This record gives sequence, structure tokens and C-alpha cells, in this order.
Amino acid sequence: MPNNKLLLEQTVRNIKPVDAKLIARAYERLDNLTKPKRSLGFLEEMAARLAAIIGLEKPRLSGRRICVFVGDHDVVKEGVSAYPQEVTLLMVKNFMASKAAVNILAKRAGAGVEVIDVGMAGDPGAIPSLIRQNVKRGAANIARGPAMSVAEALQAIAVGIGRANAAVDENISVLATGEMGIGNTTPAAALFAAYFNIPATEVVGPGTGLDDAGVRKKVGIVNQALEVNKGRCTGALETLAALGGLEIAGICGLCLGAAARSRPVAVDGFISGAGALAAMRICPAVKDYLFFAHLSAEHGHRKFFEMEKLRPIVSLDMRLGEGTGAAIAMQIMEDALAIYNEMATFAEAGIAPGA
Amino acid sequence: MPNNKLLLEQTVRNIKPVDAKLIARAYERLDNLTKPKRSLGFLEEMAARLAAIIGLEKPRLSGRRICVFVGDHDVVKEGVSAYPQEVTLLMVKNFMASKAAVNILAKRAGAGVEVIDVGMAGDPGAIPSLIRQNVKRGAANIARGPAMSVAEALQAIAVGIGRANAAVDENISVLATGEMGIGNTTPAAALFAAYFNIPATEVVGPGTGLDDAGVRKKVGIVNQALEVNKGRCTGALETLAALGGLEIAGICGLCLGAAARSRPVAVDGFISGAGALAAMRICPAVKDYLFFAHLSAEHGHRKFFEMEKLRPIVSLDMRLGEGTGAAIAMQIMEDALAIYNEMATFAEAGIAPGA
Repeated sequence: MPNNKLLLEQTVRNIKPVDAKLIARAYERLDNLTKPKRSLGFLEEMAARLAAIIGLEKPRLSGRRICVFVGDHDVVKEGVSAYPQEVTLLMVKNFMASKAAVNILAKRAGAGVEVIDVGMAGDPGAIPSLIRQNVKRGAANIARGPAMSVAEALQAIAVGIGRANAAVDENISVLATGEMGIGNTTPAAALFAAYFNIPATEVVGPGTGLDDAGVRKKVGIVNQALEVNKGRCTGALETLAALGGLEIAGICGLCLGAAARSRPVAVDGFISGAGALAAMRICPAVKDYLFFAHLSAEHGHRKFFEMEKLRPIVSLDMRLGEGTGAAIAMQIMEDALAIYNEMATFAEAGIAPGA
Repeated sequence: MPNNKLLLEQTVRNIKPVDAKLIARAYERLDNLTKPKRSLGFLEEMAARLAAIIGLEKPRLSGRRICVFVGDHDVVKEGVSAYPQEVTLLMVKNFMASKAAVNILAKRAGAGVEVIDVGMAGDPGAIPSLIRQNVKRGAANIARGPAMSVAEALQAIAVGIGRANAAVDENISVLATGEMGIGNTTPAAALFAAYFNIPATEVVGPGTGLDDAGVRKKVGIVNQALEVNKGRCTGALETLAALGGLEIAGICGLCLGAAARSRPVAVDGFISGAGALAAMRICPAVKDYLFFAHLSAEHGHRKFFEMEKLRPIVSLDMRLGEGTGAAIAMQIMEDALAIYNEMATFAEAGIAPGA
């Protein structure tokens, strides 16, 4: 798929680091508001960066969308998940009925939810408004070989870039990542281990509900996946193809596509973090556009924040995925911009700026 | 003021620990929703406790109010604040103009803001809709004697109880605490040191902007306050009177009054925490009704969470007070109830519960 490779290259070329001068100008405004300087802490950091990305004059997250990428994983055959693969399809139906956790939290955040079949194992059939861009009917078993070919990874990334472009064309000003895929903490952990070059034990956790023996087994499977695919992990893209999943590649594409159009992205939890990390390895400047929603309860997510010197917006011991953490975080990102836009300045309130 | 003492006693008698059986029943519902069991972590803990407090059938935070108690502190004469006392009044005017940080964040959270002069040093004059229940024109200098008499503390607590009762009578279902008072990190730190019996160095921080020398001086002032008032700190109420402030006593009363009417309270940051701690020392069962909004950047707040084995809803390095953290937390509390009320059950989605 040479077109997909060209699209990725073009997208990466369009990603510019966020201008530090714009961030400084955003802080000039924030420092003039009626509060002790920087007393809203991380809220101000978010406001400054968001304003620098979206625009310094009345920046708002006026259209919000959570893109839920769905993919399956043949590695579930190794017994790494507490749920059977059929649940992926049932949960997609639940998303489309607007009754899953992500739908409820998205509604609270004023965000729409779109669901993309980028790698489901079974044909979902006719589900109204499901976006059908299936690249492959499930990622292959990473314990036995590569999850997908590089061409397939490029195609899944292109799906993500396409969703970002579609959103921006529809006046969406902030995107969020979400995912569904039974078994996908295993490839996510494998990607963290590979990109950070750290042992599997540091990034493997119980996922949706493994017991201790299950976690030990999963560590073994991740190690096996790393060993089997060692020769294939020659670069960021190749590693994603070998150890990842279609939905993870889709998330990677969404991050890149949004950044290329200068839109911020709320990155959900553990799986989304793996997709974002792939994007950051493909194009480091993408990081400026990413807002990491929450610290998941999944063991290993903490490692990601440590290694990348990042800070989650909330930390609520959530471990569901779907985009649930991103929905909560989007509200706080909008809170930050409301502060930037709506507070009185010292001059307006007749107060000397003080400390 | 014997009536205020009777009111406090009556209020405390009406505070019942939240029924563990109701919490268990709330979890029965949560465990039937389409997500791995407890995978929404702290969100589920909040939902279960909120449902047990408000009612298991469709609990909602349908009316929300942040009560901002305002008081001054003569201890500012010791040079413990980066801002002059006049700023208290200017900020009250800013609140009433709906242009301060708390107003902006309250609007985002769908909450109203009321501002109560319970202890301002100067007469604020005619400010429409400011609630004028001034008990004393500023707390006295705690470095030289008690902040107030026990009778004055009881009156300020009664103001807080009264605001809780007024809110419940007006169909408010969740209350939040906020405060304004130049210099009030000093009495708050003194209260933490006294209630926990720990050194001032563990709870004194820069407040709204002291430098290192200023913080060292403030430690000395807090130690002096503890020494001067040692003989007066004979009980929870007496300690609050000796070392606290009018707005801190008001917050204490709001917590107690809300709990007595079975309404949850979002407790803001460092100063509000001191008021909540006084309430918890007066009546331990009140704790069941309190939701601690955020971990403040103010040094010492972390100690409060450690000592009381509590968990903040967010941690954003905020150190502004006013009720800003509580506003953000109320949104997440409502998110938690949305999950409880609106998600599909496994039966509805045709999924086996799994792990």
C-alpha cells in the first residue's frame, strides 16, 4: 500500500512542534487573571498548551469526539484474557446502543462517540453508523509471529489519520482515543516492553481480570512474543506491526492525524498509551498535541508515565479503556480553557497582581 | 450563645454513619453493568457511597451549590501572607461579579455559588446577594491569643449549618465548600498541627506565594500560635476556636449540617480540609458524607490525606482555594452517578458477566 506510506510521511511532515512563544503568550494572559500566579497548577499548563495549539483568542473545545477503534487479537488463544473474543462484538453493539461506559461519560463531556471496526475478527454485519474500515479480521497471534504486516499496519494507521481528518473537516476541535479488543493489554504490554526495552514483568498486569497465575502466564506470552518477533522490530513502525494490533495502529494514526491538523488529543489509558507511544516514536513532535487522560490501574501504565516524563490528568484506578478516562479528562481540559477565557484580569477587578 | 451549642449538638445527633448494607446494594448494581467488575475503580467507590447517601434509585446531584465562606485573619500582621488583607474584599466583589476562578468552574459544573461574610475584617457594605452573617470582624491574631471565643466559633459553625439547611430546603442535593481569606493557610496549618499533633514544618507551606524565608517565618508563627494557645486546645471545638478562623468554622458547620440532612459534600483544598477535619473531630461519622476534591499543591495537604487515610478525587497542583477544586470534583462525582444510572447491565447487552 504505497499510498498509505505516502500518507503517513505527508502527515508526519505536517506535524510542527507547538510554538514555545505561543505558550509564553498564553501564560501572559493566565498570569494576569485574578489568582496568585500559577495557582491553578496543571490546569494552567493545560490551558497554555491548548491555547497555543488551538489559538490564543477564545480557544474552546467546541466540538469533541471520541474515536473508539476496535480490533481483535489471536493471542487470546494463549489464554491471556478473562473474557472470550465474542465480547468484542457484543461490546460494539453496546457502544452503538449508547449504553456502554464510554457513551455515558462522553455524553457528560459533551462529546460524540464514533466506533471504527479496523480489525474485528468477525464480520459485525450491518450495524448502523458503525464505521467499517476493517483492515484485517483480527491481529495474528503475536506469540507465534507478527501481529500484522507492515503494509497492514500502515493501512490501519491510515484509517486513524482518516478519522482525524474527517473530524477536523466536521469542525471537531478536540479528539480522544478509545478502544475495544479482548486481549489487547497483551500487545500493548509487548509494545511498551519493546519500545522502552524493559522486562515484560514491568508492564504486564491483570488486564480485565486475570488472577496471579494468569498474569504470570501472560508475562511468559509477552516474552515469547518479544523473542519470536525480535528480528522484525527494526523501527517504530515495524515494531508496531509485529507486536501491536489494528486498533492500536488506528490510535497511532489518530494521534498523528490530529497533530498534523493542529488539534489536541485526549489519550485514554493503557492500550491508547501504546498507540500514542508508537506515534511518538514515529514522530516525536506529536507529543506536544497529546493530553494523557488518566493513570490506569493496569500495572505498567505508571512505567509509561515515568519513562516519558508525562503526567496524567486524573488517576482514578480505572482500567476499562473504551475512552472512559479520556471523556473525564476532556471535561477538565475544557475547565482549563474556561479559566483562560472567562476569568477577570487583575486590572478588571482592581487588584494589584501580588506574588 | 446557648442556642448555637444546642444546634450543634442536635446536628451531630442527626448524623448517622452511611449504611454499609446500602453501599453493598449499590455495588450489586454496579457489578451488573457492562464492564469488568470494579474496572471503573474510584469512580465506582464514589458512585456506591453517593447512592447510599442520596438513594439507590436513580441518584443524581440534581442541585449543586458551592458555599464560599469569607473571613479575615489578624495574624497577617505577622507578615505571613503575600497579599494584603484588602484583597479579601476585592475578591468578594470579584465573586459577586461572577468573574473569579470559582465562578467559572462552578458554571462548568452546573453549580451555583453563594458567598457568605462570616468573618470579614471590613464591612463589605451593600453588595447584592452577598450573604451577610458576620460573626466577628476578622479572627484575632493567633500568634498572640485565640482566634475567637468558643461562643464565636459556635456561632460561625451555626452559620455553616444554616447554609446547609437552607440549601437542602432549596432542593440542593450536593454541597461544596469554598473559602476566601487572606492569610488563612496559617490558621489551617495550625489546626492540622494541633489535631494531628505533628510539627508545624510538616504542614506549613508557601500559601499564595511566600518565598523560603517567608515559609520559615510562617513556621515560627504557627509554632508561636500553638504555644500561646496550648492551654485552650482542650477539645475539638476549643481547638478550632483557638487556632482557626471564622470561615474555617463555617466550613466545619456546612459539613456537619449537610451530613445531618444526608447530603454529600465536596470538600475543596487545604483550608477546607482544616474545616472538614474539625468537623470530623467533633463528629467522626461526618466523614462518610465527605468527598475530598483534590490534593492541593500546598505543602501539608498530603499529610492530611495520609493521616486520615483519604484519597483525593483529583491532583492538579492547584493551590487557589475558593472552591475551585470542589467544582472540578463535583463533575466527576456526577460522572460516577451517570455510570450507576445509565449503563446497560450484562443481561441487557447479552454478555456473560465474566471476571
